Amino acid sequence: MKKVVKFGGSSLASAEQFKKVADIIRQDENRRFVVPSAPGKRFKTDTKVTDMLYQCYALAEEGQNIHKALQEIAERYEEIIRGLSLKLSLKEEFEEIEKKFTGLAGKDYAASRGEYLNGIVLAAYLGFPFVDAAEIIRFDEDGNFDGNTTQDLVSGKLGTMDAAVVPGFYGAKPDGSIQTFSRGGSDVTGSIVAKGIHADLYENWTDVSGFLVADPRIIKNPEVIETITYRELRELAYMGATVLHEDAIFPVRREGIPINIRNTNDPEAPGTLIVENTCRTPKYTITGIAGKKGFASISIDKAMMNAEIGFGRKVLQVFEDNGISFEHMPSGIDTMTVFVHQSEFEEKEQRVLAGLHRAVDPDSIDLESDLALIAVVGRGMRATRGTAGRIFSALAHAHVNVKMIDQGSSELNIIIGVRNHDFELAIKAIYDIFVSAQL
Amino acid sequence: MKKVVKFGGSSLASAEQFKKVADIIRQDENRRFVVPSAPGKRFKTDTKVTDMLYQCYALAEEGQNIHKALQEIAERYEEIIRGLSLKLSLKEEFEEIEKKFTGLAGKDYAASRGEYLNGIVLAAYLGFPFVDAAEIIRFDEDGNFDGNTTQDLVSGKLGTMDAAVVPGFYGAKPDGSIQTFSRGGSDVTGSIVAKGIHADLYENWTDVSGFLVADPRIIKNPEVIETITYRELRELAYMGATVLHEDAIFPVRREGIPINIRNTNDPEAPGTLIVENTCRTPKYTITGIAGKKGFASISIDKAMMNAEIGFGRKVLQVFEDNGISFEHMPSGIDTMTVFVHQSEFEEKEQRVLAGLHRAVDPDSIDLESDLALIAVVGRGMRATRGTAGRIFSALAHAHVNVKMIDQGSSELNIIIGVRNHDFELAIKAIYDIFVSAQL
Repeated sequence: MKKVVKFGGSSLASAEQFKKVADIIRQDENRRFVVPSAPGKRFKTDTKVTDMLYQCYALAEEGQNIHKALQEIAERYEEIIRGLSLKLSLKEEFEEIEKKFTGLAGKDYAASRGEYLNGIVLAAYLGFPFVDAAEIIRFDEDGNFDGNTTQDLVSGKLGTMDAAVVPGFYGAKPDGSIQTFSRGGSDVTGSIVAKGIHADLYENWTDVSGFLVADPRIIKNPEVIETITYRELRELAYMGATVLHEDAIFPVRREGIPINIRNTNDPEAPGTLIVENTCRTPKYTITGIAGKKGFASISIDKAMMNAEIGFGRKVLQVFEDNGISFEHMPSGIDTMTVFVHQSEFEEKEQRVLAGLHRAVDPDSIDLESDLALIAVVGRGMRATRGTAGRIFSALAHAHVNVKMIDQGSSELNIIIGVRNHDFELAIKAIYDIFVSAQL
Repeated sequence: MKKVVKFGGSSLASAEQFKKVADIIRQDENRRFVVPSAPGKRFKTDTKVTDMLYQCYALAEEGQNIHKALQEIAERYEEIIRGLSLKLSLKEEFEEIEKKFTGLAGKDYAASRGEYLNGIVLAAYLGFPFVDAAEIIRFDEDGNFDGNTTQDLVSGKLGTMDAAVVPGFYGAKPDGSIQTFSRGGSDVTGSIVAKGIHADLYENWTDVSGFLVADPRIIKNPEVIETITYRELRELAYMGATVLHEDAIFPVRREGIPINIRNTNDPEAPGTLIVENTCRTPKYTITGIAGKKGFASISIDKAMMNAEIGFGRKVLQVFEDNGISFEHMPSGIDTMTVFVHQSEFEEKEQRVLAGLHRAVDPDSIDLESDLALIAVVGRGMRATRGTAGRIFSALAHAHVNVKMIDQGSSELNIIIGVRNHDFELAIKAIYDIFVSAQL
């Protein structure tokens, strides 16, 4: 059994956190391939090392001396090394970095050094070999991730090894220049490594005890989701609930490797298991609730529109021509409503209206803004009758006016439109009826 | 105050029914313009005069002698004339009809004679002048209704009259040849006359006591809707609930003339008032429930589809290219479902699937057939929180699996998808919770 373990920035922010990480790794002999992030914040007002690196590189670009700024970064690592009583010097590495920064080796190179250095420290502390991600994670000349080459390199290199530390977040182009994933990309590295070595499990260690049923800024101490499918995760993530980098799902998903979200600060908690599919009965009917504010709706009325073949297509064409993607398009009889992101729509509003009038000659068009969309997601909804009834009764009880309901035949989710100012109230009401009421 | 009163076929099927009609007209001096249908069925297994005329004309087209068949029709009128003790002979009219039938004057001419003759009888019985609809209802050369010319003719002719009987269902082209509306078109004539003379009310007398909250074949003795807006009526009619001919709404709607559906056999019942808008609080939260069976759903899954501008448009383009109109398109995250009429879809199924694969390269496509759509319609839903909750709780309680929910921001209706075999059960559950529970 092989496990890839990825640790986030807060899990590796200090010597104390490093010790927890090492304890976790030593507790399970299957945890042999480790992907570290750069040191994160040690306290709320602290600065992440990656941000310090960006700032330092910005100085270099302005032609300023960066020695002092780099020293501050070096001190972050020295503090960890001292705290772990390691005999390790990063002097050479920092000299190299100073040279490359001054030579303007690129913003991606700069950003990647946080993980690179943290990987060296963690490898030394664990006694594991260090493998530079630049050797095995490959991007093409245009900067697109090259999955096939990477797969060969990862399995070729790590396949022969018993254990390794591979820094997250970056890789290299064919010419050796460093390229990073988007922010939070260490999750992606962990997923790629897991796929490359055909791991049985990808453990993603963070500072939360898993994926939460609802946003903790809205619900105080929400329950942790025990098991979630990739599909459910994707739906909740799309609606704003994020723990994992979005691109981290696809490599392992295709291989059927589960992801286990764990908490470095509470290693006994089982966390959340993300799986392709499961027979496990979910604890609650709903798996999670997520949502976003800032939508607008455009309602188009026209008598006999259903009889006009092409009506809906023409409506969507107008939005497409204006570069606006639509979120949902509920329709009644002689009426069709298009939900869009308010920010995308606002500046093009009058052009869209004019376009709609030209395209489909509607009887009337109504606009409504400041709307929020909420997704109630759960594979358990399929087996449980009355979920919709409970949702809408709870919302009515909470005096929330439901502006839109959209449930396709997947029965995995219900999308609800409410006013922005009812957003938190609506999420609380749904959480309470499905979770609090069951505790 | 001027009222146009239209009487349906069953209201004028016999002398006894004629007497009821005359009583109704005499009871209110504002009822001065009367639009009759042809005599309908006197009993369940009876044949409508219009159907007898069609059959008779078919004989003429086959070159057979029609004298006997026409005599049977004449006997229907003679029976009424005798029953009313009228001194009226239709001998000349029937000679003319026999000549025209033999000369193959057209199917529309043939069909129109039921209303024509009934108009003559009713005018004689009421002592009102008879105005042939061919004089004032005009179609163009291509057979399309000519609203402007008709408006001038109707207001010119009837505007100077104190009372008149105008047979329903037909008019004439510029060359004088007879053309009918589609079956049930006397409703349209009544509406056109009401518009033409700027009536205050269009009374449509039938054999039901108004528009029913639900289909009486599903709900035993359903409640009558007191007041319904044109919009609500259109939504219910679209979903299969019909009392009025669809085209009868538009002429009066544009003029703001209410329609009152009344029952000739129960003239004291207030019936249903169809209005443009009303402040009257509806008796129940919902105005009506209607639905149709025979839909299919095509669910298209594709990761990240929402990020693809044009995805929805391309999907609808495929249906449009195959000449299939879509009813609803609920969407979740990474999933979009298109509801279509099963009969339209079935034969083109594989072409649509191939088209979808080519157009949007989906991860998967699921089909489901034998679905029904139910529309719960009501202006009262806007003011009443919790309607959706009550609907879905009731459906859950009745063990109905909800396959689709679609509610736009109009808040005037909720569309629900269920399996065909749950259709009646679902309508009963909704009727009971909103109507029976309140009685």
